[in-house]
Amino acid sequence: MIRKLAIIGVGLIGGSLARALRAAGEVERVVGCGRGEANLKRGVELGVIDSYTHDVGEAVSGADMVFVAVPLGAMRGVFADMNGYLSADAVITDGGSAKGSVINDFYAVCSDHTTQFVPGHPIAGTEHNGVEASFAELYRNRRVIITPTAASSDEAVKRVTHMWKACGAEVVEMAVEHHDRVLAATSHLPHMLAFGLVDALARMEEHEEIFRYAAGGFRDFTRIASSNPTMWRDICISNGAALSRMITSFADELHALAESVERGDGERLLEIFQRAKDARDAYVDGLQ
Amino acid sequence: MIRKLAIIGVGLIGGSLARALRAAGEVERVVGCGRGEANLKRGVELGVIDSYTHDVGEAVSGADMVFVAVPLGAMRGVFADMNGYLSADAVITDGGSAKGSVINDFYAVCSDHTTQFVPGHPIAGTEHNGVEASFAELYRNRRVIITPTAASSDEAVKRVTHMWKACGAEVVEMAVEHHDRVLAATSHLPHMLAFGLVDALARMEEHEEIFRYAAGGFRDFTRIASSNPTMWRDICISNGAALSRMITSFADELHALAESVERGDGERLLEIFQRAKDARDAYVDGLQ
Repeated sequence: MIRKLAIIGVGLIGGSLARALRAAGEVERVVGCGRGEANLKRGVELGVIDSYTHDVGEAVSGADMVFVAVPLGAMRGVFADMNGYLSADAVITDGGSAKGSVINDFYAVCSDHTTQFVPGHPIAGTEHNGVEASFAELYRNRRVIITPTAASSDEAVKRVTHMWKACGAEVVEMAVEHHDRVLAATSHLPHMLAFGLVDALARMEEHEEIFRYAAGGFRDFTRIASSNPTMWRDICISNGAALSRMITSFADELHALAESVERGDGERLLEIFQRAKDARDAYVDGLQ
Repeated sequence: MIRKLAIIGVGLIGGSLARALRAAGEVERVVGCGRGEANLKRGVELGVIDSYTHDVGEAVSGADMVFVAVPLGAMRGVFADMNGYLSADAVITDGGSAKGSVINDFYAVCSDHTTQFVPGHPIAGTEHNGVEASFAELYRNRRVIITPTAASSDEAVKRVTHMWKACGAEVVEMAVEHHDRVLAATSHLPHMLAFGLVDALARMEEHEEIFRYAAGGFRDFTRIASSNPTMWRDICISNGAALSRMITSFADELHALAESVERGDGERLLEIFQRAKDARDAYVDGLQ
């Protein structure tokens, strides 16, 4: 049972964790912390958090569990503000989509607490933002990757694992670099393609017409281009090395594909499309 | 009222047209034509078609409306098989996703009937195939683009327009080259990105793990990669010129994006993502 949970960043991710732990009866008190007063007030109204503060030090004082769910670019500042206010029994974890940069940030400004820190990444989300979008079931049957550092204590890992399991999630440990590469492939690259495509079409001369004739598949394909631009800017910068390699390699493949299309190489095209369909169908079957 | 409708290719597109016209009371008799016996039998069982034949000439004999919904690579053969069997009052239209190639095919092998031919493209579909997947509402509130040729008679254009309106669709006329460019951007390029991405991930060493950690957005983003590979091979070849240009230009943009990510150009990334989000949100608002 968590005595005092501090949620730094009360949005979809942070709010849903609070809701899930409440629903599971796993938390006594939840304090929210963030910048936007209206969002925090709404969090109290919705019963997601019991109270709020704009001060990170105040939020984490006396907390035995601290969850940081702010954009990656704000992580370091939040960790710095915690320093000196964390209890000895506090465990700190986060929801950042890139893990190498978060660990660097923590080590840079909160180095007295590395044993208490367990980096994490819940593989869940929607394209909506804010506490209003949060719901208790977001993590049910989803995976949460944790990337403990060499310093993370067994006790801290155990408590973070227990917390996510209480939300209905499966917890998996992964090495940091591996996490950042896998996520660049499965999440960051697709977002770049969706943002990039919609932007490219929006800049075409006949853009109004183009969107008018986009069919059903386009709506699904581009859903992730409605994601939060600031959050994604931060992800790109935080996972820049792995992601830029991934984009470059995919762009090279597209050039090869364009050549196959241009010379009408039906055999090659069919091979690519069939392999993709088989993999995608198997992936969806695996979900069910 | 259509007296005899011949549907060449009784799948999602052809089957849904038959269902919609029946539901609207706009057709007396529907004859299906195709290769797969099981699919055609199922079409009769489902009441989508009244009877079937494997012979295109027999199917179109006495028909006053002929709808060709076969993969683009099969169009020319079907048109050739019609020649000599078409009634003087028959109107021929199709559902192909590229229009320049279909017109070339028709003119090459069915040149006595060019006044009766009105190329068309219903902007609707799902990732499912076959008559089993067809439904009467597929075209409701969707757009159908027709690209009449210089030879198409006013009467033929009027009858095709009336047919699609009876299915609940909005009919729009467009120049052939313009259609092929707009569709390359909104449909063919997104399909290439989805097929290409899933294929690239499937070929990565840790592909099983990669698909395991793909989040919710990935499922939507890659839905169109479950589309029919043969159909898409044909589309690529039929719209090769416009599509290969579109892919190349997008690959170039991705290279530029990779550079922005690599040098951590947050301002540039935010600008791209924000413009994309605004365009995508406006597009979705426009749908509602």
